[in-house]
Amino acid sequence: MTPTVEELVEQVRPVDRTAYAQARERHAGLAKPPGSLGRLEDLGARLAAIAHRCPPPVPSSPALVVAAADHGVHAQGVSDWPQEVTAAMVATVVSGGAAVNAIARTVGAQVVVVDVGTLRLGPVPDGVRDERVRSATRDLAVEPAMTLDECRTAIRAGARVAAELIDGGTDLLVTGEVGIGNTTASAALFAAFTGADPADVTGKGANLDDGRTAHKVDVVRTALARHAAAGRSGPLETLASLGGLEHAALVGVMLAGAAARIPVVVDGVVTGAAALAAVALAPEVAGYLVAGHTSAEPGGRRLPDRLGEPALLDLSLRLGEGTGALLAVPLVQAAARVLTDMATLADVTRAPSTLPGPGAVDAAIAAPAPLRGGEACRGRS
Amino acid sequence: MTPTVEELVEQVRPVDRTAYAQARERHAGLAKPPGSLGRLEDLGARLAAIAHRCPPPVPSSPALVVAAADHGVHAQGVSDWPQEVTAAMVATVVSGGAAVNAIARTVGAQVVVVDVGTLRLGPVPDGVRDERVRSATRDLAVEPAMTLDECRTAIRAGARVAAELIDGGTDLLVTGEVGIGNTTASAALFAAFTGADPADVTGKGANLDDGRTAHKVDVVRTALARHAAAGRSGPLETLASLGGLEHAALVGVMLAGAAARIPVVVDGVVTGAAALAAVALAPEVAGYLVAGHTSAEPGGRRLPDRLGEPALLDLSLRLGEGTGALLAVPLVQAAARVLTDMATLADVTRAPSTLPGPGAVDAAIAAPAPLRGGEACRGRS
Repeated sequence: MTPTVEELVEQVRPVDRTAYAQARERHAGLAKPPGSLGRLEDLGARLAAIAHRCPPPVPSSPALVVAAADHGVHAQGVSDWPQEVTAAMVATVVSGGAAVNAIARTVGAQVVVVDVGTLRLGPVPDGVRDERVRSATRDLAVEPAMTLDECRTAIRAGARVAAELIDGGTDLLVTGEVGIGNTTASAALFAAFTGADPADVTGKGANLDDGRTAHKVDVVRTALARHAAAGRSGPLETLASLGGLEHAALVGVMLAGAAARIPVVVDGVVTGAAALAAVALAPEVAGYLVAGHTSAEPGGRRLPDRLGEPALLDLSLRLGEGTGALLAVPLVQAAARVLTDMATLADVTRAPSTLPGPGAVDAAIAAPAPLRGGEACRGRS
Repeated sequence: MTPTVEELVEQVRPVDRTAYAQARERHAGLAKPPGSLGRLEDLGARLAAIAHRCPPPVPSSPALVVAAADHGVHAQGVSDWPQEVTAAMVATVVSGGAAVNAIARTVGAQVVVVDVGTLRLGPVPDGVRDERVRSATRDLAVEPAMTLDECRTAIRAGARVAAELIDGGTDLLVTGEVGIGNTTASAALFAAFTGADPADVTGKGANLDDGRTAHKVDVVRTALARHAAAGRSGPLETLASLGGLEHAALVGVMLAGAAARIPVVVDGVVTGAAALAAVALAPEVAGYLVAGHTSAEPGGRRLPDRLGEPALLDLSLRLGEGTGALLAVPLVQAAARVLTDMATLADVTRAPSTLPGPGAVDAAIAAPAPLRGGEACRGRS
């Protein structure tokens, strides 16, 4: 039986600060100048905190969940692209011909496409996981995009897919999405959850030129005014009012990943908007999220402030699908593996002929910084 | 018979601008908004240019060459670390316990350690490739670090190792190094090859605090004045005068990779200094080099200007060994694979039900930008 949204939220425990401190301590004693692995050290400590153990397990079975849905706000003319493109992109991903498939093969990730609300103008291709809640959201500029029940159902669908993957051995979740119009809904979520002005969080999305952006800003502004007038500003109400079904499903993926103490990699602005909603529902989720790629959308640039760290990659991707998050998978694996595999300074200096000489080095090796939160954990060595 | 340095230089042909243009053209027709894969598209086109074909092959057998050597300039007190640490690091890498081994396992890369000039105070560990030219360089602050013959021998050693790897199936070369004192030699090479003031290209290296940096700047300044007074400023003379044996060996790796039309990933400031020397010797080498990671050293930040593109990663690594370059390997593989594997817009729109509607999109699909340099190449589809 799939847990309710409240049960999903309840299952998320804080990350483990002791394991975090142990990983920091372990890094200080590895065979390298302290801190010289930079952000890989930060990430490794976060992975220990996520797994509640140090060294953290090295993820070997990543899975990308691509949540697909259509958007009633498309009627406002926010996109160059017709809504049929959502179905075409879903078909391309399940056929293995999308960008995300090429990258998934490179990093050894499974790809799961979940239809939580596409228009479905033709037959559903084989290989699509059918969790459709409704045929596209309502137009968020004029009414709530989803009912609370629809939103809950989509969250639970995402959580169910993630939980099944985890039961099957997935140890690293990667988020992706497909849905024409979803950068408009994402901008609305960014504005609502961060308090930013719509003009500061709305970008061109997948449009071919910047001409539509001003219109998108107006649409987002209208939606926010409508939502504010309704006077129901809880996280779930906000997500249902302004978000997409794929946002809701991705919230479920994040909740389920966090509950299972598994890292969840965030991709760009759409998955980032879902991350804001997930963190609003369950603040401890933030500790389980890893920002994979800096979004080219202005809203996405605010995400690091909320997650507490900048994204790992900045390659000017603006495709979505999960492409940027997938590219970060080897970085996550490497950050865990250095904590597991590396020799310690003590190992290296065991042979007397290789003992460093002068004072500063001796001191650095002999007197590591005092333990914070317990002894440093041990890897393979 | 290993080619001479002149023969190595002669073997480097320009990258293929036609294949580059074909890859750009192909990207414009793939199933995604044009340009939406950002720097992955730039990199893919460069890989096509390097391989002289489009789509470029997807590298499947990366190999890291870790060139190890000691430095006479250590006598000037430029490092916190005793020279014994070079041997200890070499031993750690061949035993599989260094950072670079953990990352190599993550990305599926082979690791080859080549001793081109360590002090070798104890027995040479099993697994080290012995190409030692001499026991450390001379002190570059007071005399040329190498004779021209020593420098040539080290270049040829690096080229020989790379050529053997390529004969064995290596299709992506990754550069790394080990050598206490080598950031001082690197700063001297950066200053000599870019004309920068030593103060602008000299950093703290692996030192534990910034206190030694001012002294390093003075040492580099002295070395440059000595070198200038000798009046022999050709690329090979400059490398021999100011560089390390590992720099020379890495120049050989780059020349051999470029000659074989294989991408060579540059790591940080030490491999970057070698890249400057290689490009000075054979300008066309630049087209074969991929900057993996932004160096934390001030000199390294000048490298993108010389290679024409910023590094792929910026994770604040300052360890060297090849760690940053190895982390970029999956990005290189992904950039090639999207060109090989992705469906085209024509594939996606073949089914009439998924044909995009409005004008801008039709136009974008029906009338791609005019071909530059020939027809767009075809991938798997």
